[in-house]
Amino acid sequence: MTTTAESGPYIGTGGPAGLCLEDLHGSLTDPMSDSMNLLNEVAQRYPEALSFAAGRPYENFFEAEQVHRHLRVFCEHLSAVRGWSDEEVRRLLFQYGRTKGVIHDVVTRNLAVDEGFEPDPEAVVITVGCQEAMFLVLRALRTSSRDAVLAVSPTYLGFNGAARLADMPVLPVRSGDDGVDLDDLVRTVLRARDDGLRPRACYVIPDFSNPLGVSLRTDTRRRLLDLAKEHDLLLLEDNPYGLFPAGTSRPPTLKSLDTDRRVVYLGSFAKTVMPGARVGFVVADQEVTDGGGRRVGLFADQLAKIKSMLTVNTSPVAQAVVAGRLLENEHTLVRATAREAELYRGNRKVLLQGLEQRFPPGSGVSWNTPDGGFFLVLTVPFRTDDALLEHSARRHRVIWTPMHHFYAGRPYSHQIRLSFSTLRHEQIRTGLDRLAGLVQEQRAQAGQHTTDVPPYSNR
Amino acid sequence: MTTTAESGPYIGTGGPAGLCLEDLHGSLTDPMSDSMNLLNEVAQRYPEALSFAAGRPYENFFEAEQVHRHLRVFCEHLSAVRGWSDEEVRRLLFQYGRTKGVIHDVVTRNLAVDEGFEPDPEAVVITVGCQEAMFLVLRALRTSSRDAVLAVSPTYLGFNGAARLADMPVLPVRSGDDGVDLDDLVRTVLRARDDGLRPRACYVIPDFSNPLGVSLRTDTRRRLLDLAKEHDLLLLEDNPYGLFPAGTSRPPTLKSLDTDRRVVYLGSFAKTVMPGARVGFVVADQEVTDGGGRRVGLFADQLAKIKSMLTVNTSPVAQAVVAGRLLENEHTLVRATAREAELYRGNRKVLLQGLEQRFPPGSGVSWNTPDGGFFLVLTVPFRTDDALLEHSARRHRVIWTPMHHFYAGRPYSHQIRLSFSTLRHEQIRTGLDRLAGLVQEQRAQAGQHTTDVPPYSNR
Repeated sequence: MTTTAESGPYIGTGGPAGLCLEDLHGSLTDPMSDSMNLLNEVAQRYPEALSFAAGRPYENFFEAEQVHRHLRVFCEHLSAVRGWSDEEVRRLLFQYGRTKGVIHDVVTRNLAVDEGFEPDPEAVVITVGCQEAMFLVLRALRTSSRDAVLAVSPTYLGFNGAARLADMPVLPVRSGDDGVDLDDLVRTVLRARDDGLRPRACYVIPDFSNPLGVSLRTDTRRRLLDLAKEHDLLLLEDNPYGLFPAGTSRPPTLKSLDTDRRVVYLGSFAKTVMPGARVGFVVADQEVTDGGGRRVGLFADQLAKIKSMLTVNTSPVAQAVVAGRLLENEHTLVRATAREAELYRGNRKVLLQGLEQRFPPGSGVSWNTPDGGFFLVLTVPFRTDDALLEHSARRHRVIWTPMHHFYAGRPYSHQIRLSFSTLRHEQIRTGLDRLAGLVQEQRAQAGQHTTDVPPYSNR
Repeated sequence: MTTTAESGPYIGTGGPAGLCLEDLHGSLTDPMSDSMNLLNEVAQRYPEALSFAAGRPYENFFEAEQVHRHLRVFCEHLSAVRGWSDEEVRRLLFQYGRTKGVIHDVVTRNLAVDEGFEPDPEAVVITVGCQEAMFLVLRALRTSSRDAVLAVSPTYLGFNGAARLADMPVLPVRSGDDGVDLDDLVRTVLRARDDGLRPRACYVIPDFSNPLGVSLRTDTRRRLLDLAKEHDLLLLEDNPYGLFPAGTSRPPTLKSLDTDRRVVYLGSFAKTVMPGARVGFVVADQEVTDGGGRRVGLFADQLAKIKSMLTVNTSPVAQAVVAGRLLENEHTLVRATAREAELYRGNRKVLLQGLEQRFPPGSGVSWNTPDGGFFLVLTVPFRTDDALLEHSARRHRVIWTPMHHFYAGRPYSHQIRLSFSTLRHEQIRTGLDRLAGLVQEQRAQAGQHTTDVPPYSNR
């Protein structure tokens, strides 16, 4: 095989195989698909820059031995508690396995303890991270070009990516002051129907959202559930940050308030156990009927069929790591992540204090106070785009996320997302000093003219 | 949350959320999507039946400790050979990581040693099993309803599944006596173009195929490559069984003969390391250009973009397990799987001898002699379908795979696939006795009339 052939223009029939971008799926020329890569790339090219960009869990608590320990705990549980033979344990770990996963009952128990609802274990599908769960749901709901999905905007990049892969348009719903503008939600549904579209579901991160860090109040959650029922929508509840409130109390999940099976719950262990397991899950307890009205099973069973054609099953080795961690902690991740939650709380405080010290009223810089999670959003008196990020990384040695990436289709904004999950206190302070340098420079270049940017707003 | 609500007919707007199958993706009502589930289900319902159905590797060589050992070997390699710090090793294992994977160089080395080609490591994407690799490639190649893919028929169920998920029609190419009927391939391409379709690629398992166990001769491989060039097709080479020849020599992979980057190579570690890692890969070294003819990278980079929207990255823990196994064996899986290869050779022999003893000439039963791999195909003088499989499992306590599942759209055939990878010699003999009982019963029911089924043929 030639691996050193000259690169050059596309050569057609009869020459070496070449592919033209326009002959590949539309998602690949969508600016959105470059977003995730771009952010990684900038971080790699400027390793000395401090990064407020990465939405990663804090990593200094990881221990090399924990993978081994978690694995052993799960295997011992199978033999000691469930009475499995060594052969059965080996088969579970090494062979092909149940499409819906092998730790569904452990996950169900965790949801009962930590989230106040206990689904039928048969309604749970263990997935390759929450990303696969999103794709499974969207692929299932997309039957024709009429099907569309709503999402509270700005939203998680990966959701737009999964929808693009499923050829499903995402209709943005304004976030507003409450985390979701319910009037705009209804308007968007009605307008979509007028346009001949069929809105199937609305994606929302009710707890400490990415990128805003905002949580829905409990009464907003109830009204959202009522509206979903009234307008026959499913709600896709994504909850990666729920265990990390700024205070001590956590609002109830949508799913725990859901009496009508309106909510498909998307779960992640990336922030609570480890990203490297790539284990997430979906709870889909909706009844599915055939054309004759006969019950054919749960929505989870349909998602499993799609999964069997996509990834066959989630690695049982990776599942065992996650289950071991849960079993070591009597099924509660609230307890297992107490140290991380405390660290994120401290980081948030240091970040908010640092912002106040460096950007006093009148500075033109404003920000929101997140209810928890990993992120807050800064509004600045100049345009933020990928070029400015690159400049910031090179010249000021500080990295952040331009907010336009979270609004599909925009080339720039006046906002940046700051993540406070991975840095230490002194890094946060140094990073903010550098960020202040960037702000000063940009304001100077603009001739001290203030722009017409309103103070911080989600709308 | 209600988990015990009564099931019943679909209740529309305003009631509990319900979903109707016709409002879900077409793949879910395709008989193909039931095939994999059906086969698992039968095996579970009749645990005392001997199964010739499962396409699984032999599992009695697995040791519980090997996951731990493989992991340690890879981590020690990172620190001792590459000089990584403990922190770097931990980050690789636990955090989000490179979309294209972290063991690409180890895999590249393995291909050089075992398969006679050494791709650019940047052309490799590590995937969640080979199944994800197939979907990535098909999703990338599918831009509109005009795009189609060819596949040598009968073929692996999972390929049809991945194509269905990508909304891409699969055009069957006859297998013929050579493993691929090249004349039929050309006819199929030309007919597709006449019909306004755009054939993008042809899927083939050149080594010990599933379900036929047939290998392409080297001259057939060369002619296939020439035809792919002439008709501007990519070849999707899937190679899960290549290390298990019946004899001692292995034919060269298509990729090792490919001087024009026509071949996208799909790799699996499910049969050579363990299914439970769910680690596969794709080698995609085709140059991709933009509308202006400028090189934008390799096809692998485009596949990685899709992967970032589908599963983010393959679990580095699972990747480490596979890499550790490769490193323990100086990158050669031929050596690592010598014991398994010997076992499959022995099983094949016992199966062929057993068939000869039980089904002499004139019995109406014929079969092919596979070149290696896990499978052979039996032709019988009666219809084989899912109902007969169920009957066979219940009444005769023997399970096999009805061949119509490997031909999209057929409800029955006169063939069955027998897998010889998981049974021990005495189980094979007992299973064949039971199978002979089924054949005798079916022939008696047909009143000893021979049917018009021709002897074994791939066509």
